[in-house]
Amino acid sequence: MPRTGLDAIFSPSSIAIVGASRHRGKIGYEILHNLIVNEYQGTVYPVNPKATSVHGIRSYRSVLEIPDAVDLAVITVPAEVAIAAVEECGKKGVKGLVVITAGFREVGEAGAAREARLVALCDEYGMTMIGPNCMGVINTHPDIQMDATFAPTPPLPGGISLATQSGALGIAILDHAKSLGVGFAKFCSLGNKAQVSLNDLLRMWHRDPDTKLILAYIENFGNPRNFVRIARETTKDKPVIAVKSGRSEAGSRAAVSHTGSLGGSDLAADAVFTQTGVLRANSIEELFDLAMAFALQPIPRGDRVAVVSDAGGPAIMCVDELVAQGLRLAELDRATITYMKSWAPSEASLHNPIDLTPQGSLEDYRRAMEAVLADEGVDAAIAIYVPPVRVNEVDVARAIWETAQKHRKPVLCNFLGRAEDSAGFVELVTHRVPSYSYPESAARALAAMRRYARFRDREEGELRTFSVNRGAAESSLARARAEGRALLRGDEANMLLEAYGIRTAATRFVRSVEDLPRAAAEIGYPVVMKAVGPTLIHKSEMHAVLLDVRAKDALLDGASQMARRLRDRGVALEGFLVQEFVTGGMEVILGMTRDKVYGPCLVFGLGGIYVEYLKDVAFGLPPLTDRDGMRMIESIRTYPLLKGVRGERARDVKAVQDALLRLAQLVSDFEAIQEIDLNPVVVFPEGDGYKTVDARIALAPPAAET
Amino acid sequence: MPRTGLDAIFSPSSIAIVGASRHRGKIGYEILHNLIVNEYQGTVYPVNPKATSVHGIRSYRSVLEIPDAVDLAVITVPAEVAIAAVEECGKKGVKGLVVITAGFREVGEAGAAREARLVALCDEYGMTMIGPNCMGVINTHPDIQMDATFAPTPPLPGGISLATQSGALGIAILDHAKSLGVGFAKFCSLGNKAQVSLNDLLRMWHRDPDTKLILAYIENFGNPRNFVRIARETTKDKPVIAVKSGRSEAGSRAAVSHTGSLGGSDLAADAVFTQTGVLRANSIEELFDLAMAFALQPIPRGDRVAVVSDAGGPAIMCVDELVAQGLRLAELDRATITYMKSWAPSEASLHNPIDLTPQGSLEDYRRAMEAVLADEGVDAAIAIYVPPVRVNEVDVARAIWETAQKHRKPVLCNFLGRAEDSAGFVELVTHRVPSYSYPESAARALAAMRRYARFRDREEGELRTFSVNRGAAESSLARARAEGRALLRGDEANMLLEAYGIRTAATRFVRSVEDLPRAAAEIGYPVVMKAVGPTLIHKSEMHAVLLDVRAKDALLDGASQMARRLRDRGVALEGFLVQEFVTGGMEVILGMTRDKVYGPCLVFGLGGIYVEYLKDVAFGLPPLTDRDGMRMIESIRTYPLLKGVRGERARDVKAVQDALLRLAQLVSDFEAIQEIDLNPVVVFPEGDGYKTVDARIALAPPAAET
Repeated sequence: MPRTGLDAIFSPSSIAIVGASRHRGKIGYEILHNLIVNEYQGTVYPVNPKATSVHGIRSYRSVLEIPDAVDLAVITVPAEVAIAAVEECGKKGVKGLVVITAGFREVGEAGAAREARLVALCDEYGMTMIGPNCMGVINTHPDIQMDATFAPTPPLPGGISLATQSGALGIAILDHAKSLGVGFAKFCSLGNKAQVSLNDLLRMWHRDPDTKLILAYIENFGNPRNFVRIARETTKDKPVIAVKSGRSEAGSRAAVSHTGSLGGSDLAADAVFTQTGVLRANSIEELFDLAMAFALQPIPRGDRVAVVSDAGGPAIMCVDELVAQGLRLAELDRATITYMKSWAPSEASLHNPIDLTPQGSLEDYRRAMEAVLADEGVDAAIAIYVPPVRVNEVDVARAIWETAQKHRKPVLCNFLGRAEDSAGFVELVTHRVPSYSYPESAARALAAMRRYARFRDREEGELRTFSVNRGAAESSLARARAEGRALLRGDEANMLLEAYGIRTAATRFVRSVEDLPRAAAEIGYPVVMKAVGPTLIHKSEMHAVLLDVRAKDALLDGASQMARRLRDRGVALEGFLVQEFVTGGMEVILGMTRDKVYGPCLVFGLGGIYVEYLKDVAFGLPPLTDRDGMRMIESIRTYPLLKGVRGERARDVKAVQDALLRLAQLVSDFEAIQEIDLNPVVVFPEGDGYKTVDARIALAPPAAET
Repeated sequence: MPRTGLDAIFSPSSIAIVGASRHRGKIGYEILHNLIVNEYQGTVYPVNPKATSVHGIRSYRSVLEIPDAVDLAVITVPAEVAIAAVEECGKKGVKGLVVITAGFREVGEAGAAREARLVALCDEYGMTMIGPNCMGVINTHPDIQMDATFAPTPPLPGGISLATQSGALGIAILDHAKSLGVGFAKFCSLGNKAQVSLNDLLRMWHRDPDTKLILAYIENFGNPRNFVRIARETTKDKPVIAVKSGRSEAGSRAAVSHTGSLGGSDLAADAVFTQTGVLRANSIEELFDLAMAFALQPIPRGDRVAVVSDAGGPAIMCVDELVAQGLRLAELDRATITYMKSWAPSEASLHNPIDLTPQGSLEDYRRAMEAVLADEGVDAAIAIYVPPVRVNEVDVARAIWETAQKHRKPVLCNFLGRAEDSAGFVELVTHRVPSYSYPESAARALAAMRRYARFRDREEGELRTFSVNRGAAESSLARARAEGRALLRGDEANMLLEAYGIRTAATRFVRSVEDLPRAAAEIGYPVVMKAVGPTLIHKSEMHAVLLDVRAKDALLDGASQMARRLRDRGVALEGFLVQEFVTGGMEVILGMTRDKVYGPCLVFGLGGIYVEYLKDVAFGLPPLTDRDGMRMIESIRTYPLLKGVRGERARDVKAVQDALLRLAQLVSDFEAIQEIDLNPVVVFPEGDGYKTVDARIALAPPAAET
């Protein structure tokens, strides 16, 4: 008896196929056929109002007519009648639904209304639903053996569970994976994700003992914040590899029309992957390459790689890629090299990468693999083989996998020039050695394993909650809203930031020139003076800023002249900001944009042209642990400048980290804040903190706040 | 009768196999066997001192015994006896040699001496030689039909010629290419390149009417400057695609031990490819992917791509990659879309990328391909197909190639989830439609075709020769050499630069404090004053620089204090430099390093941290055309800063281009100059030129100058 709705879907004791068809080629036929021929271990009930038996099995006119309990119903009838069928399932007490039927949200408004009705019925009857508009589910566990899809062939059983937002792509993956010797535990085509989401599956598969590795094809995140939380927990125990499409704007638009959902910024998507340790594959090929390595081999314990080959060229190409991917060539023990010298052909090159040349025999190859894997300075090996004319490649393949099985170190293989169905390839993958068509692919896959290991073992960090003055922040925002302003004034912005412990240059707002001296005296000279008006966004272009004002007279003169000049140009003036003149630090930028999909997205970079022209910025999604914050700061290319170059003192990076975490808390607390741009923030030498010099804080239009 | 040595090698009327063997598996057997079974159209003469016939053919004890003329001799005997065999070939009047035998430079000193002897014999007898240590040559022309390799199967005839520095890799390429439907005109395994180089082959294949596309696997350039010249001419007419291994330092070291030659800096290699329009493939896979596209399809006339698919997911992945590669989605004509609406399934998405969904029929797919290829807004198309359960993929493949043949626009294909030997794949490639396993590979290959078109059509530019004062430059260098200095003094460096028309800040060198005022008066205040001494490299760290000195007294005081301070610290002082104080410009760096392999390598970037921490620099190898120089400048990421941002005036980029070209001429004229570092060069607003403020010029040690 299944305990949850998802259990009912993946481990049902009984399945009703609503829309089971007698006609080959119809989806209602193919799914029933797959369940039967792949020997589903429970009971199948075809439902067809016009038949008494389908595929040789007693069928029912309605789910309600089935005499026994039904755990799962697979709905294949057209959209117009699907709602009624689902309502009958509810009445019957069905726990899980897989709705294959298309014609919902993806076809526009009428479809969206139909989808809402579907969800309402699920809620009413307590049913859990996959889809609609999906291609079905699979569970290869021998007690279940359920292939409730219309895929042409069932996958091999194995340790991978795959969730996909494109059914066709999912089935192509299952198809191709079979030839790579890669097997699956569970498969789920998510369809429109009207109810069950990738997050639900991640949570389930994280606990599932049959699932060793999770793959996902993602077009959009339903709830990115939940994903961040759930994926982060999952990757601590199991690798998750995902393809996220819609990297480009054009691709993103296409994804919208494909799934009817917004994709959101790809920079934010990248931040999601960085923070959660989900390995992002940038192509379908990379997804396969990585999946094969993770599924078949152990994770390497270090980054020292040995390359064994019978041809110099491909070995060099492999080394180039290993190094480009951040791995390094193992330095072999002198004893290992001496040992190899005792039998290797004289032409051979025995310093890693090892090139036995075509003169090397099968036995030489086996001994070289054995020698490098036994070497304590080696964490992983890549075996490259260019099958020459006269050697049986299956013998070489056997030598490789037999040696690999004796050691707990990953071994990846490349038989160059051989197709994926060559005898050597098949020999390797059926004995759990991943084999690639190209040496570079093996190098990239190994590097991804190492990247996962580094993520898994990294310090998680703590989620800090700062004690802040939420009330003061609230009132700062309330005032601007009350006055109908979408932009906070400089002094309001500073008050808001200070309420959250983010340091700002001392600032006063005054309405008239006469009030300036008192404000400046409070702050202390030298000061900066800025004109404030509704159209004064780019103050420097209007000459509406005075820097380094050192005394009262200069302040008054400057302000009067500025006021006259602006008046002459017809620029409205609301008053002046007086601000502490901050110098002697390095400029950085802290900011936030609220993405429609991802929510608040924090940004950090060095000030000025670094951000604008070099795009040297880091993104992060709250909640951030303290380590997340530091990793953001450390990840920009210009980080060395912050740490001090050419004998300069290091800047107060810890203080910037503190500011970033406080900013994260601020934007999580107030959804009304649409955008924050602290530019520049001047960072002083280590221990001396920082000061925000200019803060631009924009509010969401009132409608969006609800 | 062959006209040149290379003709004798690739189109011989008769071939002697020196070392022809009766034993299967021996190289001397396999090559003879390949020649015979692949129906070489000339006459083969086996040479074997111990046999009267080999492989059923009358054999000779020595080349000298052959009664007829011999165009080409293939040498397979061991290294110890190869020299004698080659000498006999010389005496016989053989024109071309292919030396398969290994055991030359690649095995160390004794081998290198043997190789020198080989080359001397070729020179003496006027023979042209491929190898030694190579795997042979192929010419598929029906009049020749020569497979003088020991590859397992002959390649398909076709338009590609392939030169490779790794024989094993080359043969793996031939092997794999066969399954991709890609055919070859000529093949050459270069081996040690003791005489015939890649440059010779490029020159030959440039003129060869059978060669439409040239592929190369390169481990090191023998003469990079010749390569730049020859490749540049070749790519104007034919695409050249190359893999250059040794990108990483570790890979480069491995390449040295593989071929016994230095690889040189990979940044210089990249500059070679940029300047010559040779497409660099970064992996063996990319080499195949590009070769297939170029070999089978026309070059696209623009960058507007249509994507037709039956599945949204892979189409989106394809679009992402197209955009990442700099192509764009074609905007379809309204009429095209209206037409498709009239028959497409209602679920279909008809705005590019077109997703017909699995509901689309074979006929729908054919009509969609036809419609987009007929659309004038489309330059190329990618056809994506995820074979569903019930459609015959060969029918789809036929629909695609039949449509493609009607239009002169490139069509690339991806059948997702299908292996390279699937029926659909074979149907496509045998009808000249390249087919890829993944949608992203098709996108990358199409982008490379477009990149080639842009290179081919770009403005070549002119090689300018400036009228310079070579004598003055000479004497500047001579003085430093006479005094045994490896570094030019600031004033000497400036004199050298000015002799070549490179502008420098006015500079005087004086020996004593007393001489300072006159020098400063000549230049005009304000000036910069720097102490000069053999250990004063980093002057700012020793406080040995005074900026913005505005009058005589300040100059004298400053110099006296500085002299005292340096004396107290025991720093030797030779004198002072007085220099014009240059302000108000943007700092850039111009430089040159002389690479052991590539020769002078010019570098350009923005000054300071941009070069040091962001590695935002461009490299170029002389000779540079004026357009080459400008392309170098335009290629850095921070180029917008030079063009003026935030309302600033543009800098004098044309003057920088002039300086770069003059620098190229200078370093080509004087091989004794080892390194130049003009840092900073201050660039003024457009029309106002630039000034070199600090010039560091180092000479090669005398030994290296000869």
